[in-house]
This record gives sequence, C-alpha cells and structure tokens, in this order.
Amino acid sequence: MIEYKKSFASDNNTMVHPKIMEALQSANVGHVVAYGDDSYTESAIKRFKEIFGEDIEVFFVFNGTGANVTGLAAMTMPHQGIICAESAHIQVDECGAAERFIGCRLIPVETADGKLRPEDIEPLLAVRGGQHHTQPGVVSITQSTEMGTVYSIDELKTLVDYAHSMNLTVHVDGARIANAAAYLNVDLKSITADAGIDVLSFGGTKNGLMFGEAVVFFNRTLSENYKYIRKQGMQLASKMRYIAVQFEALLTDDLWLRNAQKANAMARLLAKEVEGIPEIAITQPVQSNGVFVSMPKDAAERLLENYFFYPWNEEKGEYRWMTSFDTDEEDVRQFAETVRKACLRQA
Amino acid sequence: MIEYKKSFASDNNTMVHPKIMEALQSANVGHVVAYGDDSYTESAIKRFKEIFGEDIEVFFVFNGTGANVTGLAAMTMPHQGIICAESAHIQVDECGAAERFIGCRLIPVETADGKLRPEDIEPLLAVRGGQHHTQPGVVSITQSTEMGTVYSIDELKTLVDYAHSMNLTVHVDGARIANAAAYLNVDLKSITADAGIDVLSFGGTKNGLMFGEAVVFFNRTLSENYKYIRKQGMQLASKMRYIAVQFEALLTDDLWLRNAQKANAMARLLAKEVEGIPEIAITQPVQSNGVFVSMPKDAAERLLENYFFYPWNEEKGEYRWMTSFDTDEEDVRQFAETVRKACLRQA
Amino acid sequence: MIEYKKSFASDNNTMVHPKIMEALQSANVGHVVAYGDDSYTESAIKRFKEIFGEDIEVFFVFNGTGANVTGLAAMTMPHQGIICAESAHIQVDECGAAERFIGCRLIPVETADGKLRPEDIEPLLAVRGGQHHTQPGVVSITQSTEMGTVYSIDELKTLVDYAHSMNLTVHVDGARIANAAAYLNVDLKSITADAGIDVLSFGGTKNGLMFGEAVVFFNRTLSENYKYIRKQGMQLASKMRYIAVQFEALLTDDLWLRNAQKANAMARLLAKEVEGIPEIAITQPVQSNGVFVSMPKDAAERLLENYFFYPWNEEKGEYRWMTSFDTDEEDVRQFAETVRKACLRQA
Amino acid sequence: MIEYKKSFASDNNTMVHPKIMEALQSANVGHVVAYGDDSYTESAIKRFKEIFGEDIEVFFVFNGTGANVTGLAAMTMPHQGIICAESAHIQVDECGAAERFIGCRLIPVETADGKLRPEDIEPLLAVRGGQHHTQPGVVSITQSTEMGTVYSIDELKTLVDYAHSMNLTVHVDGARIANAAAYLNVDLKSITADAGIDVLSFGGTKNGLMFGEAVVFFNRTLSENYKYIRKQGMQLASKMRYIAVQFEALLTDDLWLRNAQKANAMARLLAKEVEGIPEIAITQPVQSNGVFVSMPKDAAERLLENYFFYPWNEEKGEYRWMTSFDTDEEDVRQFAETVRKACLRQA
Repeated sequence: MIEYKKSFASDNNTMVHPKIMEALQSANVGHVVAYGDDSYTESAIKRFKEIFGEDIEVFFVFNGTGANVTGLAAMTMPHQGIICAESAHIQVDECGAAERFIGCRLIPVETADGKLRPEDIEPLLAVRGGQHHTQPGVVSITQSTEMGTVYSIDELKTLVDYAHSMNLTVHVDGARIANAAAYLNVDLKSITADAGIDVLSFGGTKNGLMFGEAVVFFNRTLSENYKYIRKQGMQLASKMRYIAVQFEALLTDDLWLRNAQKANAMARLLAKEVEGIPEIAITQPVQSNGVFVSMPKDAAERLLENYFFYPWNEEKGEYRWMTSFDTDEEDVRQFAETVRKACLRQA
Repeated sequence: MIEYKKSFASDNNTMVHPKIMEALQSANVGHVVAYGDDSYTESAIKRFKEIFGEDIEVFFVFNGTGANVTGLAAMTMPHQGIICAESAHIQVDECGAAERFIGCRLIPVETADGKLRPEDIEPLLAVRGGQHHTQPGVVSITQSTEMGTVYSIDELKTLVDYAHSMNLTVHVDGARIANAAAYLNVDLKSITADAGIDVLSFGGTKNGLMFGEAVVFFNRTLSENYKYIRKQGMQLASKMRYIAVQFEALLTDDLWLRNAQKANAMARLLAKEVEGIPEIAITQPVQSNGVFVSMPKDAAERLLENYFFYPWNEEKGEYRWMTSFDTDEEDVRQFAETVRKACLRQA
Repeated sequence: MIEYKKSFASDNNTMVHPKIMEALQSANVGHVVAYGDDSYTESAIKRFKEIFGEDIEVFFVFNGTGANVTGLAAMTMPHQGIICAESAHIQVDECGAAERFIGCRLIPVETADGKLRPEDIEPLLAVRGGQHHTQPGVVSITQSTEMGTVYSIDELKTLVDYAHSMNLTVHVDGARIANAAAYLNVDLKSITADAGIDVLSFGGTKNGLMFGEAVVFFNRTLSENYKYIRKQGMQLASKMRYIAVQFEALLTDDLWLRNAQKANAMARLLAKEVEGIPEIAITQPVQSNGVFVSMPKDAAERLLENYFFYPWNEEKGEYRWMTSFDTDEEDVRQFAETVRKACLRQA
Repeated sequence: MIEYKKSFASDNNTMVHPKIMEALQSANVGHVVAYGDDSYTESAIKRFKEIFGEDIEVFFVFNGTGANVTGLAAMTMPHQGIICAESAHIQVDECGAAERFIGCRLIPVETADGKLRPEDIEPLLAVRGGQHHTQPGVVSITQSTEMGTVYSIDELKTLVDYAHSMNLTVHVDGARIANAAAYLNVDLKSITADAGIDVLSFGGTKNGLMFGEAVVFFNRTLSENYKYIRKQGMQLASKMRYIAVQFEALLTDDLWLRNAQKANAMARLLAKEVEGIPEIAITQPVQSNGVFVSMPKDAAERLLENYFFYPWNEEKGEYRWMTSFDTDEEDVRQFAETVRKACLRQA
C-alpha cells in the first residue's frame, strides 16, 4: 500500500474540503428524522432548484456508480441498450453494475476524445423495431469526459436534439460537471436543463465532498418511481442530513466552482510545465482537470517510483494525470520536475 | 416536516457520536489511495480481526441495506430462497432490494418475537430437490431482532447447527448486534464466529456512525467474489478512509459497547417508567434498545402531537419506541411523563 | 419412473388431442418465414380476435410459466409486488421465475378456495407511497383456480373494479380458463375482456395442445414492448407456425370448449362416484377438472400403489385428482372403484 | 407477409422432417408423467450418452436462445463477462436475454470469420482481479459459426486448452453443430467432449425438429443446479415426451448427420453455381450450410423481389444465403438462375 500527500492519480484520492467538514460538524446536533425527511435535506434541495431551475427533482445517493446506475434505471427498460462512449465510467469502471441492476446492455462506441456525436448514434438505430435486437433507449454521456475533454454547449444541444428526435433520452454522468462548467465559463443550468438533458448524475465526491452524489431529473416523467429505485439500489442514506449539508456547502458561495476552477487551473499549469519536455506528448486537449500524455515506458516507470498514477492505454504508452481542488502550484511544479528528471535519465 | 431534539422514533435519527466526528476530522489530511487501498482501511480491518478473529474477511459498505443485500448475494443463487422472519428488515424495509439484486425470493416466517427456530425452518425444506420450487438456501436472522429481542448463545448455536446440518448457510443482520452483545454481556466473537454464523452485516450507523456498515465473512468460501459484488452493488466507497476511521473509532476503547449499553439502559429505564401506567402494556421483552407497547389509539395520537414514533402493528395498537446512545435519562423521563399525560387524558 | 395409461395426477400428463396432431401435420409443408411472420400465425391471431374482440394483442409462447412471467413482466416494475393467492402457480410452481426475470416480489395471500377478494388486497395497500416498501402493482388471479374453483363473473368484476380503482392492473393465469368458461357456461370474452382484465395467459397445453400458450393483452398500453420481453424471456419460437396452427385448431369448432366440458364432466362424475365413500371428504367445490379430497393416509398409500397423484396438503391428508379431455367414464369408474377398495381395506 | 416454398433466408424456415413428425405421432398415446419423468425422455437421454459419452448430463429446452442463456447461466456469475464473437447469436440476435437473465455482460470481439482465437482473448484478461471491472469468466463460441465457418478440431483444442489454462470455461452454441461435424467428417463427441468443452447447446430446430434444443454438460460441476435454472428460465416443457422423441429420432440412423450433410452439400452446390457470376464474390469459406456473398445492391434488390433473404452487412453489400436439409438441387439451381438473371440485368 503506497500513499502520497498529493497524488496525481485520481481526484478520488483527495481529502474533504474544510468547508465541507465544517458543514458536517455544524449539522451534528440532536435528532432529525431519517431518510431525507428533514430540514437540512429540504434546504439543500432548495439550493439545487435555485441553481438548476425549479422544475427539477433531486435525490441524494452515496456514490457515483449509485447515481449513474439508479438514474439510468429510471430511464431504461431491460430490453433497451444504453449508448455510451467506450471510455465511459459505466462501461469501464462499474463492474457491470448497470447490466446487473437494470438487466440491460451497454452499447459502447469508440471515440477519439470521449465525446459522442449524432453520427456515432445513427447507425446503432438500424435495429429499431426488430424483436431480436437490444433496442437503443438512452444516450449516456460524460461531462467533462473521462478523457478530460468538455462538450461545448453547441455540441451538447446538437446531441440532445438529435437524441430526442430519435426518441432517445439523455443521461449525463456529471462526476466532473463542475469542471466542465468552469472550463466553459457558464453556469450549471446552461449545460444541463437548458441543453435539454433528461437526467444528471451531479458529482460531489471528486469535487471536495466526503461522499455523496445527486441525481437530478430535468425530465420529471422519469422521476416518478425513482425513490423506490434508489431504495432498491441500496442508495438511500438513513442519516441523510450528512449528505445534504455537504451539498448545501458545495453550492454555497460557489464552492463547487472555485474547487473546479482550481483543479482545472492546476491541470493547465501541469500541461504547460511538461509540454516542453521532448519525451512528453499531450494527447488530449486539457479542458478540465486531467492531463493525458504519452511518454516512454521506462520514463513512466521511473516516475511511478515516486508518484502513483494510472496508465490510460498501456499499448500506446498513454498515461492519465489528474489534478484536484487541493492540488497546489508547488505540487504541480514538484511533479513536473520529477517528470522531467524521469525523462532525462531516459536520454 | 417535524424534527425533535431527541426522538424515540428510530436510532437512525441520532447525531454522529463526537468520537466518530473526531476520527473523521483527524483523517482529513492529504491524499490517500481511493477504494480501500489505504492504511486507514488496513488498520480498521486489523481491528476487526482482533475482535472477530483472524480468519475473517471484512468489507466496508455504505448502509444497512447494502450490507444485507450484497452479503446475501454472496450466499445465494437466484433459484434459492432466503428464509427470514416476517418482521425482518430485508423483508419489510428494503423495498425488495434483495429480490431485485439477487433475483431470488425471500421466504418470510411468522414469529411471535422476531426469532427463527429450527421448527420454523424444517417444514420449508419439504420442497428440496423439486425443480418447480424455490430452494431454501440461506437463513437470515436479525440480532438483536426488529422486535428488540435477543437470541441467546444457545438459541443461536441451535439454529446455526440445524441450518448447517441442512446445508443452509446463516446470515446475520447485525444492524443492532452491539445491543445484543451488551444485553448478553458477551463479546462480539461469541455470538458470531464462535456461534458458527457465516456472514454478518455489522451495523455502524445506528450505533453512532455517520454512515458505514461492515460485511464480515466468517465462512471464507463465500467471500471469494464479494469485492465484485460490492462494486456491482454500488457499495464501494471511493474515499474509503472515511468509513474506515469511523469503524476504527467505534472499535476503540469499546465505544461500540458503551454506546449500546447506554441505549439498552435507556430502553430499560423507559420500560420501567411506563410499566406502571395502566393503559400501557409492554408487548416484547426489553432486551435491547426498543420498547414495544400497546396503548389506546387516542392516547397514542395525543402523544404523537409531541413526539413522532412509528406504529408497529396498527391493528393491535402496538407501537415501537427506540432509544439510542445519545438518549439521556432526562429525555426518557420527559417522554415517559408525556406518555403518562397522554394516557391520563384518556381516562 | 412410473407411467399410467390414464392418470389422475395432472392434466399435463395427457396426450395431444388428435385434431391438434392433424393440424400440426397439415402445416408441415414447405418453408415459411420464421418467428411469426407467416400466414398461419396471422390466421390464428385473427381467430383470437374473433373470440376475444378486435382490440387485443396476442402473442404465442412456449409454456405456462413463460406466459405468466413474460406477461407479468410487461405489467410490473421491479420495485412493485404482484399480489396472488398463496396457492398460485407463479408462487408455488415456477421456481421463482418471476422474481428472477422481473426482479420483483410476489405477495402471496392465504385463501380458503384459491380466490382473491378485495378485502384480501386492501390491507396490502397500506404501504403505498412508502419508499421502504415493495409497492403492490399487479393482482394476479388464476381462473379456474389451482383448487378447482371458479370465479363467477360477478366476483371477477368486483375484483377487477376494485383493483383498477386502486391503480392495480389485473393478470389472469388462464392455464385452465377453458374449464372456467365451460363451468360458467359463458364465452371466453365474458370472463376476460368484458370483465376488464388487463392481461391473460391463455392455456393450451393442459387442454390438448402439444405445447404453446398465448399471452393476450386487453390493455394495449401494456403490450407496447412485449415483443422484446418475449424474446428476452426466451419464449419466441422460431418455427412459430407450429404453435399457431395448434391454437387455430383449438379455437375451431369449439374444440377448446368441448375438451374443457369433457374434463369438467369427468371431474363431476368422479366426485359423484366417491362421495358415498365414508372415508372420503370432498374439500373444494368441484367446478372445473379437479377433485380435492381428504382421505386417510393409509388408504391414500394403498391407492398410490396403483395410481400416481399428488398430495395437496400432506398435513391435512388432502389430495388432488385431476381429469382431462381424454379421461373417459370407464377410467373414472375404474379409479373410483380402486379408491373404494383402498378405503375399504382400511376399515 | 411473404412466404416461399423453399427459401434461402434461414434454416428456421424449414418444415419438420417427416421422421420427426412420425416420432411425434407415435408418442401420442395415453398418459405419461410430465416434466421429463417419463420413459421417452429416459430413452432419449440414453441416446445422447451413447453419442457424447456416459459422463454427461442432458436437459431438453424449447429453443436456441433458451439453451444458450440457461446454459450460460449455469456457468456465469453476474459480475463475470462472456467473451464471444461480435457476430455471435447471443450478442446479435437474442435481444439481450443473457444480460437480463444472468445480469452479466457480453464481451464481443471483432473477428474476420466468426471464430475466436487465444490471441483475441488474452488482452481481455488484463482486468483480472480488478474490482472495478467485469471479470471474463466464460468463452462462448459458435460451431459452425454464424458466418458458416467451422472450427477444426485443432482450433477447438487450442482455444479450449488456452481458456482452461486461464480459468475460463467454454460454451458452444451448437445450433448448427451437426453441420460442423458433417463438414469435418467426425463424430459429435470429437468436437465436444473430446475437445474439452464444458457446455453445449445442441441444436435441433434448425436441423429438422419442430422445436427443441438440448443443453449438454460435459463439465458436470456446472450442471448441479441446472434443473432449477431451466425452470426459472421458463424452459421446462410439461409434455416433455414430445421434445424427447424428436431428439430420439434425430439421433437414430444418423438422421442428424444426413440432414446436415444434405444442407452442407446444397450450400456447396449453390456456391459452385454462383461462383462464375462476375458480380458475385463469395466472402466466407463455404464450410457448412451458409453461403456469404457480396453483390451489387440493385442486383440484390431485384433478387429480393423473388426470394427473401437477409443482408449480413448492408454497408459492404454482403448477404447471407442459407440452405437446409430440405433444400433440393432443383431449388438451388432455380435460385442460382434467378441470381444470375438479377445480376445480368444489372449489366
């Protein structure tokens, strides 16, 4: 087991933001009714409505897989397929949870940059109406993507309009949607409700929470039975106030945005710091808090002696470095310096 | 939405124990590897082994339903049935999560006191080997039971030995197992590993945690694939350290026991305080932190104006009052006094 | 392995009616498009519409469990429960297929005669809206029931009206619905479409077919995705014509009715033949093709030396005798005589 | 709805072989115990053991999807993945039945000829042991493949040995295994039991049966619970004798082989007849009863006016023509002549 003060491996490795800890502490008074029927939860939901619009339904769950799978369960019948990028978290990193819980199939699509486009979806609809074939029902995208790229508002709207015109609903895995909003310099409503998406997994954990994600329904015909799905999905917290107050704090004084801006800035800094190293090639546009690079294998191995991080595509020698709200300039410079040395020794 | 400083509705309404908050705060330093590959988790697991024996496997999950359902999923094939008391949480309060996730059936048994006995199980085995019928595979008991009663060590061993002799495995929903150990005045190993049970949901949330339960495998042939089941069950926390340190604190200096003793003592006190009220009948032995009473409906209604609590059996006029680690004598006396007045006005 | 020319064990033990074999033979010519897109299937569906009304959808499947489970799958979300009699085939004899395929729960209700009534259902609705609890969504009844009794048209309408008023849909397991129509002396539409039921499993196999059941949707909002459910449920026959022509033959010249009348008459005859035997008590009204009796255990054992049949309730010494379209008067008299002797030797 | 006396669309469009009809007729006598506990079933199973070896378990089911999915269910835990060719029936043509019934994921692999090789599987095992990822557990191959190609015994053994060395079990979709044996000129045991495969779907319907497939377990540790899985999978026929006698007839006097040889010969003849047509290119080796061709789109459209058949890959202008046991030389010549004319008019 290896641990580092500041890792570039994952934004899941971060501590809890001090403001969040404060909120948890301040809610720790007396008894309140369990399972969400409390004033903390009421208040947090109110905050969501201020940000995303009144005409939504919000539910808190424990984690990202829980948010994705239970949200998708509200959108998908078992004979339907969920179209997603081959790199999507639901496809790669959730151990088939969607298949098991929903009984459906994922339909992964190869992409260059983690983004789906109408032309990726159109050929998949040829099976429509054929009883022998899984029927595409939902498009699930990730914003910002697992490759650190961000859908522009235009890209989003084009995709959503196409999907709706084809009777597909649209789900957004927003584990890092704050980073996308920060990059696009827009509010959260612009890239969700206003873009027409149906259901959003709104990420908390990667952006400073201890635990907790929110499932936000913009299409309220889909939320009717969600409370039962959440419970069946083992995602109903008894002491709900402790998720609610974290979100309340995250959505107060733009903490969500400031955290995302910081993480994004650190990724840009890291990219800038390493882009002069000849052995390093940046393989994806740096639009959120990830830097994707290719580097020589032995340089990577030397670097791994000091910093743990994940290969993205071992065959291609591609690696992923993640920054987070608690990454500091000094952390970046130290890391970049270590990268430089690892590459040098190579030469 | 109604809230009370100290409710007798549920041990889910409690705050987080200050020692647990302290532990959370103290772990909030720097980066650690996510998903359990960190030293906090390692240390908490070590603590479990000190208490339950070295030959176990422990996994942390988010909540009680998650612990029960994923634990049972490791024990049950879809064509099998899970025998449980009709009052079991998995039967009554989990919205069919086990059926959905496992694809199996629950086989509820009517009981007087929430406890299963071999004679309850024996007639259910007549279908063994018949391809048309759900095959009993697991016995799931609750300790202490949903009715506040506690299996003695003898009762446990008799049941487990019978189950094993019949090729059934035994699961314990231990959301309140600390209260059972406190009542029996024994250590946790005596009523789990030593009694031969196979898998335990070890409760944290009701005993002072913010969130978090542990699935403990004594029968290690059942744990082989559990890590995948936990992930598929959406129960793998990314920032695992924050569950681990709560359990570390709970299992340090017998906090688990002191909390349970306190809750149990308060239930006994409450029973004592109300047993003299003629309109009140105590309907179950008070062995853990629940007091079950029957009382006239209009008295209950008057009482509900001041305190929220749940009817247990509306038809019979039976109600459930729960105490918890943060219930104080003064809370009990105030509540008992309010009960008395509610009954008096009746007369 | 024991076999009998004419058993009273089950209407599943029968041969295929000669008219059905003829139909199979006559369809065995050349190639036709598979999976139901053929003129035989078209014609059989037309016949169903003549009998049940034009506003239906009909789908053929392989067997009764397939018809019940896939039909119910079109009606039920995983968080919902299916209310049924404790004696229902879906509860007792399908190895939990509904739970596995749908992910839902069955909610069995104890009944004296296999029939559900509004008062059985009403208390089960108290959990409505509670996120912790399986939500009743469907009522599944069996007509004629597993106990050989028949819902009258009034009983049906009362139940269906109540169910619909409570936002529950109604499914009928009609494995023996022909016997019910024969007993009530009404057409099939009267006890299905006209009574307001939503989905029917229309039985073929027990009434003379080789294999094949039909799922009939009267509520067409429920059939929208059924073709996919049938396929996922592994119930789509490739050589569909061979199911279709069997149903065509069954629904021609009232073969379905004549077979059912014959089976019913033989059950009545059997009841009459044995009712004078002092050791025999008939325990259910003989309304279809089953005779339920209680008799001394040793008499039953002697009888079992010559005829195989199933105990219905071993504890009560209750047994089930089934007749079928191919039972003859002579078969009944021989069996009744053997019963008499088995009882006599007892005395 | 279009029908043809002799289609080249699918071997599912065929009639039932006269010998099979005879067998059905001859079994249509009196009562026998239902659900497989009869002498016809016993005898058919004996026949399977003569052919595949004594150390097997055989179970009859209704159809190919049922055989594949329930067989795979006996081999696969929900967190596991089933590796198969992208062209596999389970992937393309079963509407996600495996995902729904088992809760698992299929892992499709692109292939040139429908065959899997160790080098296709090896990279998929990199995720082994990672709790975030679906764990490959089973390799499912089709013999002969959906592209009409046949695994040689060496190819089979190489694949199976590799799979077993990697702790993967091997399933064979043998809907057309008779055609493979005919092509290889070997007995059925050589390409199943002797090659080390674990579970086989043995096809009946495409080779002359009315309905009915067999699930054959060579690895008997996998069959322990299969009878329950079959029932849960809605695949247990009540009047089992009518499946059993069809298989008995198929396995008598090498009817299975003669049917397959005939179909294969007709495919070779068809290939020979069309290979001289300049517009036609044969795209796969003709090893069983399918001929895969590319042809100009307008020629295909003209041909479709007279004969219905399926595009295999519309983009590439690739089409599939299937022969069957009841295809005659005259049928082939007429079809080839029509192909020729359709191509000519093109020029």
